[in-house]
Amino acid sequence: MKLHHYYRSSASYRVRIALGLKGLAYETVAIDLKPGVNAQRSAEYLALNPEGLVPVLQDGAVTLTQSLAIIEYLDETHPVPPLLPRAPAARARVRGLALVVACEMAPLNNSGVLSYLKGTLGLDEAAVNAWYARWIARGFEALEQEVASTSGDGLHMFGSEVTLADVCIVPQMYNARRFQCDLAPYPRLRGICAHLESLPAFARAVPEAFEGA
Amino acid sequence: MKLHHYYRSSASYRVRIALGLKGLAYETVAIDLKPGVNAQRSAEYLALNPEGLVPVLQDGAVTLTQSLAIIEYLDETHPVPPLLPRAPAARARVRGLALVVACEMAPLNNSGVLSYLKGTLGLDEAAVNAWYARWIARGFEALEQEVASTSGDGLHMFGSEVTLADVCIVPQMYNARRFQCDLAPYPRLRGICAHLESLPAFARAVPEAFEGA
Repeated sequence: MKLHHYYRSSASYRVRIALGLKGLAYETVAIDLKPGVNAQRSAEYLALNPEGLVPVLQDGAVTLTQSLAIIEYLDETHPVPPLLPRAPAARARVRGLALVVACEMAPLNNSGVLSYLKGTLGLDEAAVNAWYARWIARGFEALEQEVASTSGDGLHMFGSEVTLADVCIVPQMYNARRFQCDLAPYPRLRGICAHLESLPAFARAVPEAFEGA
Repeated sequence: MKLHHYYRSSASYRVRIALGLKGLAYETVAIDLKPGVNAQRSAEYLALNPEGLVPVLQDGAVTLTQSLAIIEYLDETHPVPPLLPRAPAARARVRGLALVVACEMAPLNNSGVLSYLKGTLGLDEAAVNAWYARWIARGFEALEQEVASTSGDGLHMFGSEVTLADVCIVPQMYNARRFQCDLAPYPRLRGICAHLESLPAFARAVPEAFEGA
């Protein structure tokens, strides 16, 4: 498999974690999202992915976009270990936790949006940081409450096994730390992430391991 | 089943369509998102959904958040007619198309974000409309290209049956029309939505049918 990604993209980081959890070997192609480079908007990359976003996973002749779709594909084609529980209600709870990150937090703070805020709207750094912190807080406040009932052991978002929700929370927590958001109000999420980050599949997927690669 | 929703929320509209496609009866509870009302931030509603968002689906003792998680739950518990194809690669393509709407478009233009732009950032109406149009265009440009290869008949986003991608595109197109975005560049998407909107499950789910209900 071939993963087109950017080391700091949280969506890319999610897929690297999932590939690691499934024990799958993959090669990487670095797509440099830095302003001024914008490799994701090159004609060559847009031919691969008209969305102009990372990641893209190529599995033989199959080309897939959107990190959650890719991860569900990996879970369906390589079912062990599972990233979703079996019961429909439990699956929906796990997907719901993952979607809080993927729909309510990450899209508001990705590089395209931050560029628009700085460039088109002319926001200064303080205003951009306040924007970033606003959506981190809105999502983490909800998740901190939800995991009080969904986590089975204080080490996972749901139950006591690694799921799709864990794959999503770790890159979001990484970004929140990078942007120096106040994480004091979220002791449960911090405890969960501290555990997850100690697991090999998560540790091998960190951005630092992929800078420029 | 009981659906807590808002008539104009596109995520609520998606779930109404899915419930209709599955032929499921449901009662509705209106959660008024209008600025000044903000029923989604009431203590009572936050106890039901700490995310402070609509929709919420209650199915007996099961309480679910996040529209895509709810729709996959409905698809797993009521498999006919299916909203996803069978083959993993096809499922991933459908989910990818749905996620372009759910992750790259809708989150940037929902009521909470528009309130922040107007209130906290003090943007005028023209600037807010330009923001709105920016993300509509980014998503629809990509989808217009993608459906050229994924649609089987020019009437559906993928293949020639209704899928999760169709459930997502119609509410997004509705909102784009409402905000008077230029839709001329997207003839394929307009053709698909015109067909879908003629189907009973889609027609019965329109916002106009649920104002205040």
